[in-house]
Amino acid sequence: MELKKGLEDVAIKETEITYIDGQLGRLYYRGYPIYDLTEFSTFDEVAYLIWFGKLPNRKELQDLKEKFVEERKISDSITDYLRKVRKDANPMDVLRTAVSQIGLEDTRPGDIREKAISLASKIPIIISYFSRLRDGKDIVEPDPSLSHVENFLYMLNGNKPSQVESRTMDVTMILHIDHEMNASTFACLVVASTLSDLYSSVVAGISALKGPLHGGANAEALKQFMEIGSKENVTDYIMKRLENGQRIMGFGHRIYKTYDPRARILKDYAKKITEERGNKELFAIAEKVDEIGCKILGKKGIYPNVDFYAGIVLYSLGFNPDLFPTVFASSRVVGWTAHVMEYLKDNKLIRPKAIYRGEIGRKYIDLDSRE
Amino acid sequence: MELKKGLEDVAIKETEITYIDGQLGRLYYRGYPIYDLTEFSTFDEVAYLIWFGKLPNRKELQDLKEKFVEERKISDSITDYLRKVRKDANPMDVLRTAVSQIGLEDTRPGDIREKAISLASKIPIIISYFSRLRDGKDIVEPDPSLSHVENFLYMLNGNKPSQVESRTMDVTMILHIDHEMNASTFACLVVASTLSDLYSSVVAGISALKGPLHGGANAEALKQFMEIGSKENVTDYIMKRLENGQRIMGFGHRIYKTYDPRARILKDYAKKITEERGNKELFAIAEKVDEIGCKILGKKGIYPNVDFYAGIVLYSLGFNPDLFPTVFASSRVVGWTAHVMEYLKDNKLIRPKAIYRGEIGRKYIDLDSRE
Repeated sequence: MELKKGLEDVAIKETEITYIDGQLGRLYYRGYPIYDLTEFSTFDEVAYLIWFGKLPNRKELQDLKEKFVEERKISDSITDYLRKVRKDANPMDVLRTAVSQIGLEDTRPGDIREKAISLASKIPIIISYFSRLRDGKDIVEPDPSLSHVENFLYMLNGNKPSQVESRTMDVTMILHIDHEMNASTFACLVVASTLSDLYSSVVAGISALKGPLHGGANAEALKQFMEIGSKENVTDYIMKRLENGQRIMGFGHRIYKTYDPRARILKDYAKKITEERGNKELFAIAEKVDEIGCKILGKKGIYPNVDFYAGIVLYSLGFNPDLFPTVFASSRVVGWTAHVMEYLKDNKLIRPKAIYRGEIGRKYIDLDSRE
Repeated sequence: MELKKGLEDVAIKETEITYIDGQLGRLYYRGYPIYDLTEFSTFDEVAYLIWFGKLPNRKELQDLKEKFVEERKISDSITDYLRKVRKDANPMDVLRTAVSQIGLEDTRPGDIREKAISLASKIPIIISYFSRLRDGKDIVEPDPSLSHVENFLYMLNGNKPSQVESRTMDVTMILHIDHEMNASTFACLVVASTLSDLYSSVVAGISALKGPLHGGANAEALKQFMEIGSKENVTDYIMKRLENGQRIMGFGHRIYKTYDPRARILKDYAKKITEERGNKELFAIAEKVDEIGCKILGKKGIYPNVDFYAGIVLYSLGFNPDLFPTVFASSRVVGWTAHVMEYLKDNKLIRPKAIYRGEIGRKYIDLDSRE
């Protein structure tokens, strides 16, 4: 039996959800180029596409929007929990616990896709309630006239988003919906394969996404730009890091060996949102890091990935950096649940093996004779 | 890239924890035969062995026992939660949420092994508090003079266990501590490989163990014996099930192609505990199912597995069947955390791939032109 640590070249399933061409830097959701979806569609439409396999017509889109609005509520016990939980808690711990509790409380029968829609609607509420309550602010009730992403920003910040904010959030959320297999999606599948419930799967996804090797890189990239402080320091900063064998945060990806299309798309929105929010210098620093980094690392196939500009974007939209992984989860939950549904159509328990390298048949020693 | 659904013949890691010989029906923890460990050791000793790699001397064992006693407490917020949570909640949902909250509340720095010990100590408290509170009983405070498993039974039932009960619980818990790779242990590793925290890993393990294909089989086996009702009905019952292409619950295992050593060991204890608790008929039914089942299915390599007698044992020890998976978790948490620690010594992010089978490059269609 061969050791396949990390499972790098092992395919766990067949999929019709996402295709990544890492050499050409292309990404497709359900066969549609990501450039088209981010240019012409909203988050609601793309979530529908991922879940149902087709772009929705007006009626179908309207139905999904209505479901999102209907499900925009969490129980009193969870609201109460968010009021009482320690204010310095890790937001991913809060989200993991709250989603686990949502699962416990959901005794409605029903289709797994309905539950996925419900959960996708509730996660932004948990995040924005917790964010406001820990800051000592009143919670903001959802506004049924707003779209999924507009309502998210509204409940977080307490004011309706501008057009630039709303569109930037739409695109950012679309870009994070799915990315084929990855550690958190895979964690969801391992759990689902035991025929456990959807909430248990998503809890495992959140648990994996919490890891710094997975969901923490965009905050690291932002921190790096803030540390650099001004455009003039970029060259020195990069040179020093590379001389010391350190990585440039937001550069490099296991699959993309060229510019990550998600980074390319986000760059434009990062420019627009930082202009509107008065963060132009932060964008200028990032752009310079991008330029110099590509010159030096590009020949090794190391380019900016989605995290590179995502940190700046989310920060400009009003999210504290410690909330970034929760925002990632609020979007990726669509991909997680779609992969679970796809896997369960032809389920097989995921149970790998281990290779034993220890002794066999050690002689038992009495308690009093042990060293 | 080859499709490896279920990962049946894929080794994810090397290990020195557990070795299973499925052909000969042998199981070793850290090289020691399971027969020796269940005959001569207690749960505390074997937990030490799994975590530390050696059997403890008196001093080391005493230290572990003291740590177990010290960590036998849960926060007021979690006790309060267990009082308020709905009484009809799935106990695995309760455990998953409570462990998630323990992780949120644990801000102590510290060694991952210390956290594993602490969590192993707390899980029985969560289970027994919830069990008593939902039954309208007062909670029972831990008794520092009792061992880990004695205290578990004491807090569950409200009276100190007999010698037979205590020894039966020891052996049952030892037998469930680890079983090399399996879906829940693997879920823990996928999460740990992102460098997420230990609690997130264990939450994923609980999420996977909740699945009926993993942690639910012992309750099914018990239900089957109860349905059969008397020894005289066994032959007919088995024949009917097999004619209808149905499984005998508690029979068959992916790895063992002979009698599961854990079932062999548990059988003796099932006999003793059912005698003491006045459940002799239940044991007699099981023994007859065992005998006839082996005659018919043995030639196909299908024999009783650990779940076959575990249900009767746990039921006789005072656990309601819906608590069985939580008891499983209270023991397996030792294996989960030991495998996480072993994996992290040489960590590699677990990120498999998927094979794309859909269209590529679908033409984008405007909202109003969609079918």
